[in-house]
Amino acid sequence: MSFTIDSEVRSHGGTQYVCTHDSRATSTPMTFSIFVPDHEGATKLPVVWYLSGLTCTHANVTEKGEFREACAELGLIFVAPDTSPRGDSVADDPEGAYDFGLGAGFYVDATEAPYAPHYQMWTYITDELPTLIEHAFPCDKDRQSIMGHSMGGHGALTIGLSFPERFKAVSAFAPIVAPSQVPWGKKALTGYLGDDKNVWRKHDAVALIEDGHQVPALLIDQGSDDNFLEEQLKPELLQTACDQAGIELTLRMQHGYDHSYYFISSFIRDHLAWHQQRLA
Amino acid sequence: MSFTIDSEVRSHGGTQYVCTHDSRATSTPMTFSIFVPDHEGATKLPVVWYLSGLTCTHANVTEKGEFREACAELGLIFVAPDTSPRGDSVADDPEGAYDFGLGAGFYVDATEAPYAPHYQMWTYITDELPTLIEHAFPCDKDRQSIMGHSMGGHGALTIGLSFPERFKAVSAFAPIVAPSQVPWGKKALTGYLGDDKNVWRKHDAVALIEDGHQVPALLIDQGSDDNFLEEQLKPELLQTACDQAGIELTLRMQHGYDHSYYFISSFIRDHLAWHQQRLA
Repeated sequence: MSFTIDSEVRSHGGTQYVCTHDSRATSTPMTFSIFVPDHEGATKLPVVWYLSGLTCTHANVTEKGEFREACAELGLIFVAPDTSPRGDSVADDPEGAYDFGLGAGFYVDATEAPYAPHYQMWTYITDELPTLIEHAFPCDKDRQSIMGHSMGGHGALTIGLSFPERFKAVSAFAPIVAPSQVPWGKKALTGYLGDDKNVWRKHDAVALIEDGHQVPALLIDQGSDDNFLEEQLKPELLQTACDQAGIELTLRMQHGYDHSYYFISSFIRDHLAWHQQRLA
Repeated sequence: MSFTIDSEVRSHGGTQYVCTHDSRATSTPMTFSIFVPDHEGATKLPVVWYLSGLTCTHANVTEKGEFREACAELGLIFVAPDTSPRGDSVADDPEGAYDFGLGAGFYVDATEAPYAPHYQMWTYITDELPTLIEHAFPCDKDRQSIMGHSMGGHGALTIGLSFPERFKAVSAFAPIVAPSQVPWGKKALTGYLGDDKNVWRKHDAVALIEDGHQVPALLIDQGSDDNFLEEQLKPELLQTACDQAGIELTLRMQHGYDHSYYFISSFIRDHLAWHQQRLA
């Protein structure tokens, strides 16, 4: 349960840490960032998990997410893990593609060779890292929520739907909502989990909802000028599933916005305020 | 006066542009970013200039500065130029050091070989780029202010002190206030301008104030944990010069903050609001 603090920087009335530890789940060193607002000595603070998208590390949202001002005001800890195991021993996409392998763990526990030994991101995010941060930082484990972007939106949705008691709110920016039905997801789920589509269902938000999973509250922002909207994201599939399951989904189409951190940073304050209301 | 729009992205209720043009001043292509808040058709908006520090391009503040939310709320255009000419034909520091040559133009017009042909950043920032943006974007040239970081704080101070009619407010994050008296500045001013220290005075904020230059309003934030504070920045020299000249300086020491964009982004909203009051 030990870890190294790679950097510790004061920002926006709080402290931005970047930490590295040897992960049991992935059998690799893993790096994450965590922002802790200033707080009274023994106070425990609610925790917002942020899962990043394809090609990202912890650093993208940490540098470009513009979350610290709102987190400091709202008293929220903000955790940003990496998106895959990394290192010379970790298998990558055979052709080095951006959408599978390194930077593209898809938040599953891989069962297929050669990915199974290290690609255990589901266990890492839902079990190992929560235990670490609860011991090392002033986290109130009874007040947690989760959000993510694109592939990380997929992660936030599937983890939120799988642990509705743990996460009081789930939100996403431009999430992959139905990986079983889109190219990015089909490639990743086949590569990590094999061909049995029944196995994929617990890693597909729309399928989880069809199978009866619930979530306390759900907010999604989607840019209308997102290049991946029609082929990979398909928020209408989530809307239909939520309608049929009686889940209240707030789906906001943001006119003219794209898939980048210029979009995420524009609305992350809204998301954090919405989370904080549900974590009070 | 033509330019190319490299990217145009919607963010925070405005548009973030990155543009490139062939500069007459530097005889190279130059890239800058400009954020334009949404506005009524023919409205012209006040302009805040942001000059970046050593090693930076326009991109650092554009990605990490967290200025767009405040600029959109306050109705401010935000311009971020590059810090030097660039290209294969542009002379660099003989040893490739970070503090001279590429990424380190120090906002002067070089007179010394081999830098004079391209390092004409004073003319670029004070003459060429203003004309370009006034023609291409809805800029109100009668409502302008200037800010900067570190070397860019030096640029903002010296340009603000030289054009007090043009810039209604000047602010800086961790500026080099007296380059003639510190290692970064001595190296740069010698390399670009030669050995005559009388020539340096128009590029040294403390010397300009000693020589009678004034500025309408001056705000500086300085982190107490900035590694460069004692050797390179020396804000006390500016305080003394302002006190003797009767210039009202607001100098805020920010406890625990460093020299990075984690520091700048924490206080840029304060600066922008302070500028906007003086641009109304």
